[in-house]
Amino acid sequence: MRATVMYGAGDVRVETVTDPELSQPTDALVRVVAGCICGSDLWPYASMPASDTGRLMGHEFVGVVEQIGEDVTSVAVGDFVIAPFVASDGTCEFCQEGLQTSCRHGAHWGAEDIGGGQGERVRVPYADGTLVTVPAGFDESLVPSLLSLSDVMSTGYHAAVTAGVAPGKSVTVIGDGAVGLCAVIAAHLLGADRIILMGRHRDRTDLGRDFGADEVVAERGADGVARIKELTGGDGTHIVLEAVGLKEALETAFGVVRDGGVISRVGAPQFEEVPFGFADFMRNVTLTGGVAPARAYIPTLLPLVLDGSIEPGRVFDRTVKIDDAPAGYQAMADRKAIKVLITF
Amino acid sequence: MRATVMYGAGDVRVETVTDPELSQPTDALVRVVAGCICGSDLWPYASMPASDTGRLMGHEFVGVVEQIGEDVTSVAVGDFVIAPFVASDGTCEFCQEGLQTSCRHGAHWGAEDIGGGQGERVRVPYADGTLVTVPAGFDESLVPSLLSLSDVMSTGYHAAVTAGVAPGKSVTVIGDGAVGLCAVIAAHLLGADRIILMGRHRDRTDLGRDFGADEVVAERGADGVARIKELTGGDGTHIVLEAVGLKEALETAFGVVRDGGVISRVGAPQFEEVPFGFADFMRNVTLTGGVAPARAYIPTLLPLVLDGSIEPGRVFDRTVKIDDAPAGYQAMADRKAIKVLITF
Repeated sequence: MRATVMYGAGDVRVETVTDPELSQPTDALVRVVAGCICGSDLWPYASMPASDTGRLMGHEFVGVVEQIGEDVTSVAVGDFVIAPFVASDGTCEFCQEGLQTSCRHGAHWGAEDIGGGQGERVRVPYADGTLVTVPAGFDESLVPSLLSLSDVMSTGYHAAVTAGVAPGKSVTVIGDGAVGLCAVIAAHLLGADRIILMGRHRDRTDLGRDFGADEVVAERGADGVARIKELTGGDGTHIVLEAVGLKEALETAFGVVRDGGVISRVGAPQFEEVPFGFADFMRNVTLTGGVAPARAYIPTLLPLVLDGSIEPGRVFDRTVKIDDAPAGYQAMADRKAIKVLITF
Repeated sequence: MRATVMYGAGDVRVETVTDPELSQPTDALVRVVAGCICGSDLWPYASMPASDTGRLMGHEFVGVVEQIGEDVTSVAVGDFVIAPFVASDGTCEFCQEGLQTSCRHGAHWGAEDIGGGQGERVRVPYADGTLVTVPAGFDESLVPSLLSLSDVMSTGYHAAVTAGVAPGKSVTVIGDGAVGLCAVIAAHLLGADRIILMGRHRDRTDLGRDFGADEVVAERGADGVARIKELTGGDGTHIVLEAVGLKEALETAFGVVRDGGVISRVGAPQFEEVPFGFADFMRNVTLTGGVAPARAYIPTLLPLVLDGSIEPGRVFDRTVKIDDAPAGYQAMADRKAIKVLITF
């Protein structure tokens, strides 16, 4: 099959690799209909040391079930399914609690015998626990939004849920990438009174306005903090959703969060030490968030995609065929595309 | 009046100073019946640069109202009252939300025209917002527990409340000082399934067991983490209440918190950078807590003290007369006393 392989920084190739096969009775084999490139794929694209063997890429995909193991009961051959970005058994305490990212048998996409979502086929471990069937079946127009549930929309929703977004709350979203834009959708969905989006790419922030952002702040750092303080009577917002993952973004979050407020970060942190000392302790700031258990949210978000209440698929502003995946990476790295969808 | 003044590290004196007087129509003048020494007083006692003028000490006290300003309505002369460790107006948005520590007109004890709780008299700004009258009036046997509501018991409760302690939750309390012991009381009160107290002073941890701790772990650092992992099947506890304020204690907290769990810290952090990087992000750990709005909790905790449900006053294991306050500091610094009560 054709699959995307990263060999090092800036070195992404599409190659013919061995197809994965069913291995466990709880597996399913899925033919990928659409995958995509994640903002987090850009970290290794910028910094991965050169490798002879490479790494199969892609952790977001939707597809059609081609085969199932004998113990699989909730997914059938022919089902159109959404795969969250981590596989999970669905039965351990963490899965039962809705924290499938901490599943005792969790598996990540990309291993050689599993495959990645930027390739034609994937072996899905714990298919019953991992996959969610789309009851309406395949509908091409819905593919982008359904695909977004694999990761970015669920991640934006995780930010808003863990932060406690609700009516009466003001929210700052830091970052106008796909996750930040989905965080705007989520904050709007959960009834936030006011949503301020921090971002400086006009095409992205315009989409953010469509998704429910009331204001856009293009300034960054201290200027951005000052602007949001000005917009909020000096207090900042009750909630900050940090969708970048850089230390500067988190510093901005502490700068704009109101006393007693909550910062939820869903941008994977590229640093180890958080600037959270005495002053913000005295302000009773909470830092929450983390990697999103997408599997927990898909059942909630899927009906909203199906009935058109939310359209997170609009974050995909470019589609490439699998053989053009490397150009997709470059477009995202150059900030020429928000998020690139890959078809087969 | 006699009052405790700190002039530098290790240099606490009891002196005769000018009595505070009513200054604003919202003030009350309170004759202090009992004050105490706080663990946080030990930080300047260890490190305060020498000062010619000194600093009036004490931010926890109970006493009798001697005078009130003309605008004071909820407190009357003769009332026996509890003062939380920060004064607050009771009317601003933050006070209305129960975050009186962020009050727009908040004031700290110790200013020259206010006085401190380790002195005979205090001018209380915003008496209506700040003070809580004890409906039962003065009862000497209840003084220690009522005094604990000024700070340590409310602080332990803040830790447990912000962490979401509830039935079904396992809790580690880090620190066997007065706040840690009160956090045990709070966790027990809120129905925690299991409470593990980390501390190595046998007299304190025995009191912790009386307060509801199910287990005690005397080991610290990596050994302490390993012991708690062992006690919890490798997972750690859902909640960690950190009542120390040193970086090592917070590192231990991250070490023993279960995936998806909450660390609430109420030990004032003596450091600026929190070790909260990618690994704990992937585990969905939340860091909350902060300085406790004691004023918000006193109405809840006071009836429990009055009916004997909780006895936080047991954390006071030494009582000194005002002139012996310096010896009280030394006893706490030497860990010969958990918490020292001062009478007049």
